[in-house]
Amino acid sequence: MAAAPVWSVDPRTGKQREQVAVEATAQEVDAAVEAAHAARAALADRSVRSAFLRSAAAGLDAARDGLIETADAETALGPVRLTGELARTTYQLQSFADIVDEGAFLDVVINHPDDTATPPVPDLRRHKVPLGVVAVYSASNFPFAFSVAGGDTASALAAGCPVVVKAHPDHPALSELVAKVLRRAAAEHDIPEGVVGLVHGFDAGVDLIRHPLVAAAGFTGSVRGGRALFDAAAAREVPIPFHGELGSLNPVVVTEAAAAERAEVIGSGLAGSMTLGVGQFCVKPGLVLVPSGAAGDGLVKALTAAVADTDAGVLLDHRMRDNFIAGVAERAQLPEVETPVTPGAGGEHSVSAGFLTVPARKLAEEGAYDLLLEECFGPVTVVVRYEDADEATAVLSRLPGNLTATVHLSGAEAAGEGRGAEILAELTALAGRVLVNGWPTGVAVAPAQHHGGPYPATTSTSTSVGGTAIERWLRPVVYQGTPEALLPKELHDENPLGLPRRFNGVLER
Amino acid sequence: MAAAPVWSVDPRTGKQREQVAVEATAQEVDAAVEAAHAARAALADRSVRSAFLRSAAAGLDAARDGLIETADAETALGPVRLTGELARTTYQLQSFADIVDEGAFLDVVINHPDDTATPPVPDLRRHKVPLGVVAVYSASNFPFAFSVAGGDTASALAAGCPVVVKAHPDHPALSELVAKVLRRAAAEHDIPEGVVGLVHGFDAGVDLIRHPLVAAAGFTGSVRGGRALFDAAAAREVPIPFHGELGSLNPVVVTEAAAAERAEVIGSGLAGSMTLGVGQFCVKPGLVLVPSGAAGDGLVKALTAAVADTDAGVLLDHRMRDNFIAGVAERAQLPEVETPVTPGAGGEHSVSAGFLTVPARKLAEEGAYDLLLEECFGPVTVVVRYEDADEATAVLSRLPGNLTATVHLSGAEAAGEGRGAEILAELTALAGRVLVNGWPTGVAVAPAQHHGGPYPATTSTSTSVGGTAIERWLRPVVYQGTPEALLPKELHDENPLGLPRRFNGVLER
Repeated sequence: MAAAPVWSVDPRTGKQREQVAVEATAQEVDAAVEAAHAARAALADRSVRSAFLRSAAAGLDAARDGLIETADAETALGPVRLTGELARTTYQLQSFADIVDEGAFLDVVINHPDDTATPPVPDLRRHKVPLGVVAVYSASNFPFAFSVAGGDTASALAAGCPVVVKAHPDHPALSELVAKVLRRAAAEHDIPEGVVGLVHGFDAGVDLIRHPLVAAAGFTGSVRGGRALFDAAAAREVPIPFHGELGSLNPVVVTEAAAAERAEVIGSGLAGSMTLGVGQFCVKPGLVLVPSGAAGDGLVKALTAAVADTDAGVLLDHRMRDNFIAGVAERAQLPEVETPVTPGAGGEHSVSAGFLTVPARKLAEEGAYDLLLEECFGPVTVVVRYEDADEATAVLSRLPGNLTATVHLSGAEAAGEGRGAEILAELTALAGRVLVNGWPTGVAVAPAQHHGGPYPATTSTSTSVGGTAIERWLRPVVYQGTPEALLPKELHDENPLGLPRRFNGVLER
Repeated sequence: MAAAPVWSVDPRTGKQREQVAVEATAQEVDAAVEAAHAARAALADRSVRSAFLRSAAAGLDAARDGLIETADAETALGPVRLTGELARTTYQLQSFADIVDEGAFLDVVINHPDDTATPPVPDLRRHKVPLGVVAVYSASNFPFAFSVAGGDTASALAAGCPVVVKAHPDHPALSELVAKVLRRAAAEHDIPEGVVGLVHGFDAGVDLIRHPLVAAAGFTGSVRGGRALFDAAAAREVPIPFHGELGSLNPVVVTEAAAAERAEVIGSGLAGSMTLGVGQFCVKPGLVLVPSGAAGDGLVKALTAAVADTDAGVLLDHRMRDNFIAGVAERAQLPEVETPVTPGAGGEHSVSAGFLTVPARKLAEEGAYDLLLEECFGPVTVVVRYEDADEATAVLSRLPGNLTATVHLSGAEAAGEGRGAEILAELTALAGRVLVNGWPTGVAVAPAQHHGGPYPATTSTSTSVGGTAIERWLRPVVYQGTPEALLPKELHDENPLGLPRRFNGVLER
């Protein structure tokens, strides 16, 4: 059987641009994993790792124009957005280089012997070591930040783990270009190029998760695809950690007082957030609780005006466009759903933004309206009109887990009056990031960031953005009674590498 | 159908002591989980949690004599060992109280807004929150330290998670007594007694892992039982973290030089470790690589003398005794296996210790001898005689994951000469705790401790002993743009609770 070709496709026309590669066979996946596995030793030295990450960032910056051009041709996301995303991606690589140099992620804990403890404590010295080869599943919607050189790859390499990336079929040409930049950066530091493998094809993705030398996986994508890979990871003879980001509604609550205070600002802000990147953000606000009555009506009016004014946009591929059109049509036909601005086909290759409204009581119990509690990828949101706090709470209690949850409060509520704290507690139970008077689109790269949440937002309690993302690819090892001559320098008493650590119970910085 | 009775059994006689309870129905499991879920709010305050843990420790100490008597009657582990184990258990509860008070486990990270970053960073404040109700599966072999008031329960309560414990059928009467002590301690601090639930029965354990309100699980037991529960946890509509400790061979390597230097000491030390607690430790050294030749022969001779001198002992239950007798017989009949001291039935209710020897080359490739690479619970170990370093490495490379791995080195090797560092690297790949010139039995409770390892040692990268065990029951949440009036005190700028944290990139202690 001839190898299946991998085409780069222009979503603005639906036409094939070029054949980029062929889908990887099981043998080719095996070769990529073996090559990555063989590169582990070259990543052992932390200073080599951080230098590699900085070279990768510099290499991407240097190749910017060509990368942006290819990315735009394959994704239609536009040069402005893509330039920003690439800058974020190189900043992320640099941030992980800093994290590697600092070494706090090694979580060094040292206990000297203590014969008075029960049972007695021997000499114990703990740090963290890399897990091994990490499989990275690229996202469609972030061709840079959550793809070949994205957060999973950056954090895995920072941890000392080689990666094999499964390219997303929406941007195979860009994936090849980015992988080449990473490999060139590796070669500059005498790291074998196999440290970053790249494979194409659905079956290759399945072969990858089942490979005995793959030690962990990172995934950003749909609930269906992510759950299938999660199940495969758990069903292995030796199960492996699967850190998947699957789906999120990103609920927003607008209080009565907030709507009364800022109906116009909130309505137009929502329009901007839900249509950003043609509604293709995993943190798009997909369900918005708006009070019934005049203030809420004002918000809906502002939202209507702003959404109606939004240009049609091109989705990442035609399958997504079909799903969007079918998904919004199915939702719109529910009897009590209204469509102040009807989303749908915007042209032969584009879609137009819109939103639905529904009374909260339709969502208080299981039924046909539960379709509105499922994520719909693209420029659409569901505005749920509630009569009182109890109705809003009833809807929130029916939501699955989320990446984000947002509340818009009035000035007085933000200062502590009213139900602000109560709503914040309700939202904390639902999500990994809770926002006040903001919009969830835009995920800052920062030490405090957390991009994850209760299932199906993520399949683990960890994050794929921010400094702590590195924790996913490490495991602790403790050395007992081990002479200093044989210990890694990280665990020596005198702390020659100046690492933050816990030394005989005391935190040292 | 009448509820199935739960009997307390004396393993020294095989006779039923008393009926302790009945197996929990699905409705009773549901009630226990609901009661635990309802107790979450009462654990929200950290100072209440730490006071509760200290009262629990004091309550166990006060009830010591009765607890030890019941534990000994149900497990035959003897009052000396059980008294030590109880002291370790109360120390563990107190240690977690200290950890709760210190608050480092909250992992507070604060970033002030930074408009110069790409993308701009808003105000972000991250800490960790409890996951919810934790299911705890008790171990047979540690009726205190890994059971109702053991490490899983202590760390879950410390994290703010109520627990429902599935009692082990080998010590149901003790389980009831310990649960009562914990509930009395809870009541002292106005925490609902449902904060510690207790259920009996195999089916109840399965119902528990499937309950929608159970948010995570801790398990200590066999590969078969643990894997079945792990699979059930992964197959849920909403999968949950399953932190299971399943099985471990705990390999030991004795170098030629070490054997030449201390054959007698190592041989008798091994006898002590493998027969401790009648060989019922999860960290029992189950496979020992000993050099062929005169020095290794000396070690085997010392081992033979010491093991032959060991009294017969009573295993935790008669099913274990049957499995031990059958398991050692099956292994002993392999053609090139020898039994310098034959393990097996030691009397009507007891077993006698012994060990097997086998040439390393029989284990270099897959085959019938692979049975020797499976854990055999009870007082037996497998001595593998190797010709050279390559043979030892070949055997190590065939081992599954382990809790511990140990090397015995000569004085010169411990000082850095020879292959010490190389062997240490081989062992690091195999286990979560690596020991030099010690024995793995005895797991200290200390901040640096790590009790976990590559599968099947554990099903996750976390530990069930030591301070970091608390990490298993938490998830991060970040607040974005949230006014201080609505933020938990843990996340206020001025740090009113004096927490260790990362503040604008800088680690503060």
